[in-house]
Amino acid sequence: MKHSPALAELIEALRALPGVGPKSAQRMAFHLLQDARPAAQTLAGALTRSLERVGRCTRCRMLTEAPLCAICANAQRDASILCVVESPADVVAIEQSGGYRGRYFVLMGHLSPLDGIGPEQLGSEQFEALLSDNSVREVILATNPTVEGEATAHLFSQLVRQHGIAASRIAHGVPMGGELEYVDGGTLAHALAGRQALT
Amino acid sequence: MKHSPALAELIEALRALPGVGPKSAQRMAFHLLQDARPAAQTLAGALTRSLERVGRCTRCRMLTEAPLCAICANAQRDASILCVVESPADVVAIEQSGGYRGRYFVLMGHLSPLDGIGPEQLGSEQFEALLSDNSVREVILATNPTVEGEATAHLFSQLVRQHGIAASRIAHGVPMGGELEYVDGGTLAHALAGRQALT
Repeated sequence: MKHSPALAELIEALRALPGVGPKSAQRMAFHLLQDARPAAQTLAGALTRSLERVGRCTRCRMLTEAPLCAICANAQRDASILCVVESPADVVAIEQSGGYRGRYFVLMGHLSPLDGIGPEQLGSEQFEALLSDNSVREVILATNPTVEGEATAHLFSQLVRQHGIAASRIAHGVPMGGELEYVDGGTLAHALAGRQALT
Repeated sequence: MKHSPALAELIEALRALPGVGPKSAQRMAFHLLQDARPAAQTLAGALTRSLERVGRCTRCRMLTEAPLCAICANAQRDASILCVVESPADVVAIEQSGGYRGRYFVLMGHLSPLDGIGPEQLGSEQFEALLSDNSVREVILATNPTVEGEATAHLFSQLVRQHGIAASRIAHGVPMGGELEYVDGGTLAHALAGRQALT
């Protein structure tokens, strides 16, 4: 069945959302136009406003409305530790864990030569400028434990060492509450290789 | 971690989409602002345009941009059969099954007295006007087999009978390809009660 043009356009536009296929997009479009017109209006406004206002932190590349993000602007945060992550969602996840008081550097992606994403696209110049101002003493590389994430961590760790700064990688191993039986081989191998002496 | 106001507003607005919780909404917002700004712009435009243009078919209440929806405007469709469904998605599903050549009447909901949804909100007046023009010979009630859907079917079947028109209900039973072992008791009871003689 063919939808009317404006409806078809809305369904197609909703498919740009991550994890939304043709069926969900249709369901969303019908819901918005049938039961939730005020919410649809709000969503259109919120999209337009956030596109206008939200840019990147000049220091760490996090999404923010101000020149500096809330974390970079917070003098209480430890400027001597820098945690390199792939995306803003990773910053949120680490903040929610509550165990980190340093600052971040958000790559907004990972190395992907086929898509034309090299060090420059990930902000390597900005990163090196940060390292050059002598406040950073340790860089924690917290990119994802995927092939691309590992390659990215490797490249940025080299930049860090060139500046004579300590680089570390987050630990990979068996997740808390996980059962060995159900953990994949790669993770288990990492957990064994990264074993820590009991004191 | 607190998001900046425009970001928080976008995340909140995305939660109006069906099936989108706080975590998915955050993921969608980051994706749109980080990697998919042109798509976000398109989505904002599509929402605004569809809110302006898409209304309801004056005959069957289906979502459409023209006064009459494509099905009501199609002279090839059999005007003597009317299929009553709860939502536009149901029309799409029945059209995709390919076995129906009549017209529809879309209730845009089901009876729900607690939410203030009575017969008028479901278009009972418009429905009776349709029945009064003497073209309809059979009304198929294809509301969902839920408590609310059954109550709605019952109410509309009474309106149909008051006009001396035949009313039928879609068959409920074991789905094609389903296995009896995994079908719930209510469905099995319906399938047994609705058994058809083999000829």
